[in-house]
Amino acid sequence: MWFIELRSDTATEPTQAMRDAMYKAEVGDDVYGDDPTVVELEKYAAKLMGKEAALFVPSGTFGNQLALFTHCRRGTEVILGEDSHIVVHEVGAPAVIAGVQLRTLKTKGGEMDIYEVRDAIRCKEDIHYPETSLICMENAYSDGRVLSLKNMNEVFNEAKKYNLPVHLDGARIFNAAAYLEVDVKDITKYCDSVMFCLSKGLCAPVGSILAGSKYFIQRAKKGRKLMGGGMRQAGFLAAAGIVALKHMSGRLREDYENALFLGKELSKIPGIKVNLEDIHINMVFFDMSETGYDSSKLVEEFYKKGIKINPEENGKMRFVTNYWVSKEDIPYVVKTLKEIIL
Amino acid sequence: MWFIELRSDTATEPTQAMRDAMYKAEVGDDVYGDDPTVVELEKYAAKLMGKEAALFVPSGTFGNQLALFTHCRRGTEVILGEDSHIVVHEVGAPAVIAGVQLRTLKTKGGEMDIYEVRDAIRCKEDIHYPETSLICMENAYSDGRVLSLKNMNEVFNEAKKYNLPVHLDGARIFNAAAYLEVDVKDITKYCDSVMFCLSKGLCAPVGSILAGSKYFIQRAKKGRKLMGGGMRQAGFLAAAGIVALKHMSGRLREDYENALFLGKELSKIPGIKVNLEDIHINMVFFDMSETGYDSSKLVEEFYKKGIKINPEENGKMRFVTNYWVSKEDIPYVVKTLKEIIL
Amino acid sequence: MWFIELRSDTATEPTQAMRDAMYKAEVGDDVYGDDPTVVELEKYAAKLMGKEAALFVPSGTFGNQLALFTHCRRGTEVILGEDSHIVVHEVGAPAVIAGVQLRTLKTKGGEMDIYEVRDAIRCKEDIHYPETSLICMENAYSDGRVLSLKNMNEVFNEAKKYNLPVHLDGARIFNAAAYLEVDVKDITKYCDSVMFCLSKGLCAPVGSILAGSKYFIQRAKKGRKLMGGGMRQAGFLAAAGIVALKHMSGRLREDYENALFLGKELSKIPGIKVNLEDIHINMVFFDMSETGYDSSKLVEEFYKKGIKINPEENGKMRFVTNYWVSKEDIPYVVKTLKEIIL
Amino acid sequence: MWFIELRSDTATEPTQAMRDAMYKAEVGDDVYGDDPTVVELEKYAAKLMGKEAALFVPSGTFGNQLALFTHCRRGTEVILGEDSHIVVHEVGAPAVIAGVQLRTLKTKGGEMDIYEVRDAIRCKEDIHYPETSLICMENAYSDGRVLSLKNMNEVFNEAKKYNLPVHLDGARIFNAAAYLEVDVKDITKYCDSVMFCLSKGLCAPVGSILAGSKYFIQRAKKGRKLMGGGMRQAGFLAAAGIVALKHMSGRLREDYENALFLGKELSKIPGIKVNLEDIHINMVFFDMSETGYDSSKLVEEFYKKGIKINPEENGKMRFVTNYWVSKEDIPYVVKTLKEIIL
Repeated sequence: MWFIELRSDTATEPTQAMRDAMYKAEVGDDVYGDDPTVVELEKYAAKLMGKEAALFVPSGTFGNQLALFTHCRRGTEVILGEDSHIVVHEVGAPAVIAGVQLRTLKTKGGEMDIYEVRDAIRCKEDIHYPETSLICMENAYSDGRVLSLKNMNEVFNEAKKYNLPVHLDGARIFNAAAYLEVDVKDITKYCDSVMFCLSKGLCAPVGSILAGSKYFIQRAKKGRKLMGGGMRQAGFLAAAGIVALKHMSGRLREDYENALFLGKELSKIPGIKVNLEDIHINMVFFDMSETGYDSSKLVEEFYKKGIKINPEENGKMRFVTNYWVSKEDIPYVVKTLKEIIL
Repeated sequence: MWFIELRSDTATEPTQAMRDAMYKAEVGDDVYGDDPTVVELEKYAAKLMGKEAALFVPSGTFGNQLALFTHCRRGTEVILGEDSHIVVHEVGAPAVIAGVQLRTLKTKGGEMDIYEVRDAIRCKEDIHYPETSLICMENAYSDGRVLSLKNMNEVFNEAKKYNLPVHLDGARIFNAAAYLEVDVKDITKYCDSVMFCLSKGLCAPVGSILAGSKYFIQRAKKGRKLMGGGMRQAGFLAAAGIVALKHMSGRLREDYENALFLGKELSKIPGIKVNLEDIHINMVFFDMSETGYDSSKLVEEFYKKGIKINPEENGKMRFVTNYWVSKEDIPYVVKTLKEIIL
Repeated sequence: MWFIELRSDTATEPTQAMRDAMYKAEVGDDVYGDDPTVVELEKYAAKLMGKEAALFVPSGTFGNQLALFTHCRRGTEVILGEDSHIVVHEVGAPAVIAGVQLRTLKTKGGEMDIYEVRDAIRCKEDIHYPETSLICMENAYSDGRVLSLKNMNEVFNEAKKYNLPVHLDGARIFNAAAYLEVDVKDITKYCDSVMFCLSKGLCAPVGSILAGSKYFIQRAKKGRKLMGGGMRQAGFLAAAGIVALKHMSGRLREDYENALFLGKELSKIPGIKVNLEDIHINMVFFDMSETGYDSSKLVEEFYKKGIKINPEENGKMRFVTNYWVSKEDIPYVVKTLKEIIL
Repeated sequence: MWFIELRSDTATEPTQAMRDAMYKAEVGDDVYGDDPTVVELEKYAAKLMGKEAALFVPSGTFGNQLALFTHCRRGTEVILGEDSHIVVHEVGAPAVIAGVQLRTLKTKGGEMDIYEVRDAIRCKEDIHYPETSLICMENAYSDGRVLSLKNMNEVFNEAKKYNLPVHLDGARIFNAAAYLEVDVKDITKYCDSVMFCLSKGLCAPVGSILAGSKYFIQRAKKGRKLMGGGMRQAGFLAAAGIVALKHMSGRLREDYENALFLGKELSKIPGIKVNLEDIHINMVFFDMSETGYDSSKLVEEFYKKGIKINPEENGKMRFVTNYWVSKEDIPYVVKTLKEIIL
């Protein structure tokens, strides 16, 4: 049975072009540096990000944790937004693998206040303080909003005053670029390392990229082995990744527009509250508590109608548009919702 | 030269009674459990705290980190106030030793909002979340304020709904009890483990106590060895600790009253701002920015006059009263300040 | 250009049947448990191993480290052979991720002496000792030899006297089973958890399996997420893995026979020393120091002749047979070696 | 009741001179660097060791672990003897705190074979290997034997070829120096950092010293705070430490001679086996299995006669001489043993 998949863009199936590319991929043992398709992907990704080098890793969490492990000495501190993926959705790994403490700041849609960042950077001389070793930003942010280049520039400059590296969790950086209508390099110039996902909105089946300086990536490569991410004939996954970068990264504006359309339609339903101005990427968050309908029953009801959604989290529903959801599907989703709750 | 010591109560020298007790202390090898004075101190401290057992450790930081190490599996999360000592003044140790992530909440004078605590507790089922393994309170709090029993009760009950242990950083628990005019057991009944310091306001030279259930302390004992805190003839320090508990813990109301007196006098100086209602223990925080005097010069000027103070931190001066500062010293301090800045 | 690949069986390319299976694989988001092909592989693998459950992971190192992380509390100790993969080839990860100490024993072809194992198990009562939390065996062992079932049985029973879990690094367990001419379940009955690789001799492109009890795998699943091994449409890799298990695991006796044939032929070359009785799987180790030829030049010379080999390690050359090396290739390899060195 | 204490020199009580020194010690808050007695001890100890700087820490385990934490990045490897204190008696801390893997070598009385050291140093280029970051020696070794300066020199030179730091666990370095009849500086010139204990044979109640370069100690100071070893008026302990260094370090030859005398007398008892040539410091190891007496009853029987001993460990009894055991006590010990077992 075919479903309209609104749970997450992580659930996107690969395209036929990806299957074709995988089928005929030239592969080798990547631990030996022998896989030509992985090499091609890493080179292409590095160039796209405006960085010297890149590394293919099994997941976004892997890439973020590897960045922390490579940038930071244990017993130091990382400044980042309190709702960011690294804080909330990576199972506490920063304390386990990199051995670092998280210094979390409140944000507005992922944007940290520059004065709060300044205050949070710990002075190196005090014997009591964990020393700040890294600042992380996340764009697009976990709440679906996109950080402005202005804010990123400010945070990056502040970091550089203290000679601190900056890592960007750019799991959905192409969605952010689509919203800002800029090249991804206009975003990545405000970070020293960046992780982005080939899966998610770009539809590749598995894998993420960590990019940065040559020296950084060289050390990350050994860290990847330590963390168990040295894969063998990874060229199959890389082949799909190349298709994702070449053919899918350009179409994400469409997902945004569909999300906006969906958001507008939902906002017309009595009792449903959507902040339309907060729709920046392919995510629509909304509050349906005033409809009086028990949202916990919605997952099952929608499933019966051929639509997959996640249950409410922190009082909000989230619908995610993606390659496999066309503009034409949206009226059906809205109509179905009305039928169920009204 | 004799100084009026206002930097911290950690700088308090032991009393003559402590020197006497140390001189004639009966000691043995505590790693073998052979030191009768340590055994006596631990028993006495456990009883005082209303817990089954107690353990002598080299410092407050050691006791807190040992509590985290003993309570929590690595990769889990600890909820606590964002300015608490464990977060700010323990060099990032929680990520290194216990391997835990800190989930920091804003507080009002150390009091966490009960609804925010509830929201912060991570649901166990989600595969992305670091599971909450511990809630920490700190009373008195780092900013010198005392948590109400009501707030502690609420947080403790909330924790128990999820079967979570509660640790209390009670470095200055006797100061808190003096302010609340309660027995320390009225405070410790809202925690499963408590650390408090024999040094600081109680004037013992070295050492802290970690108290909790028998099973907890038994496991902590092995953790203490791992962390390098197994000391040999520690009975010397314990002897002073016993004097501290028996003869010094009752006099802390005096330090509070002196602090209040000092605060009131300071508040009369033009340009100096003190929140008198925030003086709960032996600490007076004040803002002198409106005096126009450059506070960074104050440390040196005071030193010349026989008074030791710390430089401003986060825009605030802090003066700490203690056993060695009598009520009679206060007018001299205030007068000296006036002479310097006016 | 086509090469005879003797460096490692990790460098094996997938078969055409695997490419076909991947092409038409049904996939889904495995983090949601939605990927039917991953689910099928895990069920099949669990059954094959005689364990309740199984988990797909990105690499052998990942599976081993995840096993350590799941079995052991930090600060405990793992007993294992001193040349085993976990000790030598996993970048020191046990101290980083699981936080465990390795207690390494000398072995005879991977077999630990049962009396040494007994001595190495640390008594729980002593406050100084790291407590033993796990015993690991590796079959086939890193030196290409296969542990006898008798030895595994003894070690397993010894562990059980102390209620200790046993993990098996079975990266090449099917090679071991082929040599022993037993079912893999006859091997895995002497362990609580087992990791084996779908890549290596089985030719799948990427991935390994960790199998154990339901409860163990349930906890490992969360650990996998923490370590960054939660992959999305991993069904592509799983599809190849299923082919590997169904169609490749039965043919490893052939690799062994080819290795033995290669070993015998090499042993006829003057100055080359091979222990034929140590050839148990698809690996031929030999010492060519007495030929007088500088082995460091061999890699390049062989490459020119269409043969890929690794340089000497610890005074030994290693040639690895695999699916892509036929019996017919062996005389060419031997002839080439003679031409170069004689 | 007065006992002859043969369990360990850790159980030695301080001398009267130490009690006197503690009684009148000038102290201050050492976290502020204000304790003159700690400062004096650290300066004196650094000079004695021939190092630039020194740091007072709560225990030998603390000093060793702090050395590892300061020298090594996590995920690296430390080479050391397999029976050394760090491996066996520090509760697995290296994996927890420094996050390092131990590469253990067999030794002859603590002496590592220089060729095995060379083989054990891992080549930096290989992506699979944990990189060697430190070599540790222990002199005197856990088995009571003293490493020759020749062996230390060789290991040190080998380390320097690879630019590796060398740490010396010199818990009983003064006993080693007494045996070798050299200055401790003749030993410490073969290491970059050294830990030695003020407690143990030197009779101070609590504490050890970590010494090394200024830069090393500066970083270790922050690590000490992280590990909870920042103590306040530690000058009391330091005062006893100064007495230990000035007045006790010179008398350890006596303990050695008493041990040798005790060993000789024990060797005359039928069924008792002592290797007299292995008695290098204040420890006599002996095997009494051939006496037919069940050694597990000995602890209690000796206790009744006013002698404290430890139970057998790994098939060996160990008697330790110290300041509080005079030559005159030895015939009584031997006579008592005979009465019990014959």
